[in-house]
Amino acid sequence: MTQPIKIGIVGATGYTGVELLRLLAAHPNAEVTAVTSRSEAGTALADYFPSLRGVYDLVFQTPDEAALERCDLVFFATPNGVAMKEAPQLLAQGVRIVDLSADFRLQDLAAWEQWYGMSHACPDVVAQAVYGLSEMNRDAIAAAQIVANPGCYPTCVSLPLLPLLRAGRLKTGMPLIADCKSGVSGAGRKAAVGSLLCEAGDNFKAYGIGGHRHLPEIRQTLAALQEGVAPGFVFVPHLTPMIRGMHATLYLHLTDGCPPDEILRDFYRDSPFVDVMNPGSTPETRSVRGANLCRISIQKAAGHDDVWVVLSVIDNLVKGAAGQAVQNMNIMFGLPENTGLQNVPLLP
Amino acid sequence: MTQPIKIGIVGATGYTGVELLRLLAAHPNAEVTAVTSRSEAGTALADYFPSLRGVYDLVFQTPDEAALERCDLVFFATPNGVAMKEAPQLLAQGVRIVDLSADFRLQDLAAWEQWYGMSHACPDVVAQAVYGLSEMNRDAIAAAQIVANPGCYPTCVSLPLLPLLRAGRLKTGMPLIADCKSGVSGAGRKAAVGSLLCEAGDNFKAYGIGGHRHLPEIRQTLAALQEGVAPGFVFVPHLTPMIRGMHATLYLHLTDGCPPDEILRDFYRDSPFVDVMNPGSTPETRSVRGANLCRISIQKAAGHDDVWVVLSVIDNLVKGAAGQAVQNMNIMFGLPENTGLQNVPLLP
Amino acid sequence: MTQPIKIGIVGATGYTGVELLRLLAAHPNAEVTAVTSRSEAGTALADYFPSLRGVYDLVFQTPDEAALERCDLVFFATPNGVAMKEAPQLLAQGVRIVDLSADFRLQDLAAWEQWYGMSHACPDVVAQAVYGLSEMNRDAIAAAQIVANPGCYPTCVSLPLLPLLRAGRLKTGMPLIADCKSGVSGAGRKAAVGSLLCEAGDNFKAYGIGGHRHLPEIRQTLAALQEGVAPGFVFVPHLTPMIRGMHATLYLHLTDGCPPDEILRDFYRDSPFVDVMNPGSTPETRSVRGANLCRISIQKAAGHDDVWVVLSVIDNLVKGAAGQAVQNMNIMFGLPENTGLQNVPLLP
Amino acid sequence: MTQPIKIGIVGATGYTGVELLRLLAAHPNAEVTAVTSRSEAGTALADYFPSLRGVYDLVFQTPDEAALERCDLVFFATPNGVAMKEAPQLLAQGVRIVDLSADFRLQDLAAWEQWYGMSHACPDVVAQAVYGLSEMNRDAIAAAQIVANPGCYPTCVSLPLLPLLRAGRLKTGMPLIADCKSGVSGAGRKAAVGSLLCEAGDNFKAYGIGGHRHLPEIRQTLAALQEGVAPGFVFVPHLTPMIRGMHATLYLHLTDGCPPDEILRDFYRDSPFVDVMNPGSTPETRSVRGANLCRISIQKAAGHDDVWVVLSVIDNLVKGAAGQAVQNMNIMFGLPENTGLQNVPLLP
Repeated sequence: MTQPIKIGIVGATGYTGVELLRLLAAHPNAEVTAVTSRSEAGTALADYFPSLRGVYDLVFQTPDEAALERCDLVFFATPNGVAMKEAPQLLAQGVRIVDLSADFRLQDLAAWEQWYGMSHACPDVVAQAVYGLSEMNRDAIAAAQIVANPGCYPTCVSLPLLPLLRAGRLKTGMPLIADCKSGVSGAGRKAAVGSLLCEAGDNFKAYGIGGHRHLPEIRQTLAALQEGVAPGFVFVPHLTPMIRGMHATLYLHLTDGCPPDEILRDFYRDSPFVDVMNPGSTPETRSVRGANLCRISIQKAAGHDDVWVVLSVIDNLVKGAAGQAVQNMNIMFGLPENTGLQNVPLLP
Repeated sequence: MTQPIKIGIVGATGYTGVELLRLLAAHPNAEVTAVTSRSEAGTALADYFPSLRGVYDLVFQTPDEAALERCDLVFFATPNGVAMKEAPQLLAQGVRIVDLSADFRLQDLAAWEQWYGMSHACPDVVAQAVYGLSEMNRDAIAAAQIVANPGCYPTCVSLPLLPLLRAGRLKTGMPLIADCKSGVSGAGRKAAVGSLLCEAGDNFKAYGIGGHRHLPEIRQTLAALQEGVAPGFVFVPHLTPMIRGMHATLYLHLTDGCPPDEILRDFYRDSPFVDVMNPGSTPETRSVRGANLCRISIQKAAGHDDVWVVLSVIDNLVKGAAGQAVQNMNIMFGLPENTGLQNVPLLP
Repeated sequence: MTQPIKIGIVGATGYTGVELLRLLAAHPNAEVTAVTSRSEAGTALADYFPSLRGVYDLVFQTPDEAALERCDLVFFATPNGVAMKEAPQLLAQGVRIVDLSADFRLQDLAAWEQWYGMSHACPDVVAQAVYGLSEMNRDAIAAAQIVANPGCYPTCVSLPLLPLLRAGRLKTGMPLIADCKSGVSGAGRKAAVGSLLCEAGDNFKAYGIGGHRHLPEIRQTLAALQEGVAPGFVFVPHLTPMIRGMHATLYLHLTDGCPPDEILRDFYRDSPFVDVMNPGSTPETRSVRGANLCRISIQKAAGHDDVWVVLSVIDNLVKGAAGQAVQNMNIMFGLPENTGLQNVPLLP
Repeated sequence: MTQPIKIGIVGATGYTGVELLRLLAAHPNAEVTAVTSRSEAGTALADYFPSLRGVYDLVFQTPDEAALERCDLVFFATPNGVAMKEAPQLLAQGVRIVDLSADFRLQDLAAWEQWYGMSHACPDVVAQAVYGLSEMNRDAIAAAQIVANPGCYPTCVSLPLLPLLRAGRLKTGMPLIADCKSGVSGAGRKAAVGSLLCEAGDNFKAYGIGGHRHLPEIRQTLAALQEGVAPGFVFVPHLTPMIRGMHATLYLHLTDGCPPDEILRDFYRDSPFVDVMNPGSTPETRSVRGANLCRISIQKAAGHDDVWVVLSVIDNLVKGAAGQAVQNMNIMFGLPENTGLQNVPLLP
């Protein structure tokens, strides 16, 4: 038995934090040695999250107390703007980082600063960071010191597009539409009127039509994969009254060629976390609840020859956040990609 | 005070039935004189629907007992295939009919028989029936003896398209995409595993991708309004974990011209039940909960010049079913269109 | 047609505020002439609550702008501690008041100050205020200048007890247990982590076991009705994952005598908003959703001779708040008690 | 590595079936070798439950095809009345059984036949069956050939009472009240109107007041633990709009003595699945979601000396069904009790 990976989690009071802790509790090679929170320093983790009673003896510490430099890996589960301030020092001390916030996701700094409304604190680290869509960048992730874990929408939208774009099958000049639906946990564990059960429950609405921060992130991926696609991308996110789960419905124009579900199936043959279902299937978000999975189907729109409909589902807190972060950790530390991530979805 | 309209409701044990009863209880010119149900004959309405205790003294009757021919108007809130059998005799006796099922919605009988899997019992009545999208066909509805009340999806999709198509603003040759989301009450009050709280709750999925019965109904409306649009229509319905509410997200290619929200606002200036909101708005389903309203916004897709996003919400049981049926009744009987339909949405 | 009652609403940005506005829109004798909010002054009511688009032209005003002294009646839908500061001046100007907060509910000032953690600003007004449990205090309400509208739990618990206590049927010396369940809207429309969909959804828990502010309010009512009952009262509130609705399950020891459901039925014979169901019935919260109703059943606990189970349901925002406030307004202004309050519950 | 336990699951199409499959997939010593369903024979398990795609290669078989006699252990996840017909033959062939239905739970056959409305097919097996409340009957379970897995309510109610009754702390002659709340999955995965999202969602109600089948089961446990308690037991179950979770609120009269939370804590010191929380705590159902846990707190009712309030939560599908069944399997096969059952609750 080798030494476990010593892990610190910065900002563990939110949903991605508690989800990391849930997943890492089942990981045979990981040991969480520090959790930090400025506001909750001194509180026992198990008092803060009753689901963790009996699982962890840890107490929230301030970043100073936590001595994160002794960790092998630090996850940032912080609001945007925190990791970029604290990462450089940890990197200098040889610690590896997976950042679940948006601080290192966009290589175009000007775009980042415009969408996130702040100056970036460490542009050089951005240049060094690897975009952590695991199935797209495995080799680079393995070698990276810092990984920018993707947003939930970008993960859910990009995974089905990746093989099709690599194969050059998208018609250029036609719009690529992503109509996306997210559970409310995507808004995080912060007190906001719009996320109240009485506001978001029994209700459905679009939001962020004028522009959502995940739009440039998806465009960056699209541009890297097939030139000319990005400009035609339309993205409309919606809020759906459930806790976990994300569903992307994509409308694509494909050039002729072999059946696209075969392209996807070939591409993901060795990817344990992408499940390409048969055409005609309608993946449900609950079929991935709590698990690090993306299930996808693709089929022609009824009565059309070149318009295709892609359905893609993830658990936004798992494959869309904490699960993919652990998957990236596995890749970074040379472990089998599915180590500690084999739990079966919770249904019903 | 004139005589009230004497009303019969056939098949009042489902959600559209109880919703008709809720709305008609507040209608100053209507009196429900008979409710029929073969399975519940003899049961007091108030025992069957506890929300109606103290509101109605009626008892479910068999169709024979009910003597529906004495009614001025009969609503059919029955499964598909019932109204077509019972309507001809009532019509012959001078009774007017609003059918909330699909029996008289499609003028193309072959298409109807294909989609609904049965032979039509009275093709001549189909020819005579008026499609009851109130805002489209007011004059014909006023004169009709039988009105085919539209489906919920067709109402939610067609209302925003109606002014744009009439104005000839849709680009032909480009797909018109309708990504629609429905609450579970759209599936009706029948025991089906897929509608259980434990199956449909905390879950999101597409369905009917291969073809949904409302597809030909919407195409019929589109074709009537602007030639050449119908073939490019893509329709994907989704099930969202809420009781009431329907949200359509439409992706359109418009030709240049005056702002489309102005076209909508002009068109619906005298329509009390269509609310055209400002561009940038995101109508919520709960903002119409329990009310006979359709709220609509239209705006350009971020970063596009000719792709527009339309958001349209209704309560599927009200403007998508029982409310529009009462609206049609008002039109048929020369009453102000909003009589008895002015209740404020229930929020939260 | 007489002059409408001119109405002001102070603090109309919360759930009881919007519910008052919904109900008053349907009231034939009421005209809302002012809505105040310090934080939202200048915002159109219809922009703030999209469900009110097309219903009200009002704009939120500061209390100063609103000139509330011109109103016939002012509803306070404010957090605790506001009405007690603003009521005295309005009362001095002859305005009548219904306060939906807790400021005037407890006659025992020391208890009030202990439970609400502040000094009371106008003890003399407390002495003058009438406790607005409509069915208990009709005559006093009719004559009152200021009515303290009851809390939701006290309404749901007290209505079934009122006839039994008046009849002296509760055994003294035995505990009276109220196990209560509330929808999340009872917590109000304020940004609080505990009310998030992701915290309160798909979850059930007790709260306030050590003592809830509605406990002394219920005890005050019990003590007024039958001496010796209050000390034995046990109250445990729970939070249930729904928006509206409150359910009280009471466990009582009754002395022998005529069937208690008959006592309730006799007592409420002329009360339009209390529905005594047959023993064996299990009232559902949705059977009163959106309506000013309390439905009650009472039956022996299976296998017991003197233990009885009472089930009582209300919509916490209607009979538990805004609806009862309008009912009290009707009583105060000599209108039939059910004026404007006859809407049928929204089911499903 | 020893041989895995070969497992068959009879009736694996319901919620307890899929939950067993989820849990057993993570069990290091178990191998599911057969799943049976008469109605779904021939269907791949992964097609039936999309959450199991990639987890199991099994296909539903008829009981005959399945050759269950080759299994070491058979779980019955069938409707009541099935196991009693099929168990005797399997027992005769040396197979061990955990029955998740109610067939072997009541030792009083007359009571069983009355509550379940059928004649019992194998009274002798009832006599031999061990009631599988793991923490109560560990030794007998270890030696049993057939275990009657408890109902969800009996588990949630009995676990907190077990130590108090064993210690003789309940006052006789006073009622013991159990006000219980269940998520809808307790009603199983069968098409029933009452379990529809549109009926059970956003709603709260009591049910089974006249008598619920779990009442005699709880009484049997109470009677075994402390004479004289059972007659005073009052049980009212409620349906709460969530998928998983069960909450019992108990009202007890205790004799004086050491703090009852200490009694519970001592009793459960070596029980990995019972978590006794501090007095003042309010356990939430979501804190055990998906995990084989019962969390309990006990405290005095506010203002009372001898009335105590117990709060007890479980996931009805795990500790209330499939999880306890696996726990019993572990005990029967001499494995550490928590083998394969250490997953962390899913929160949010």
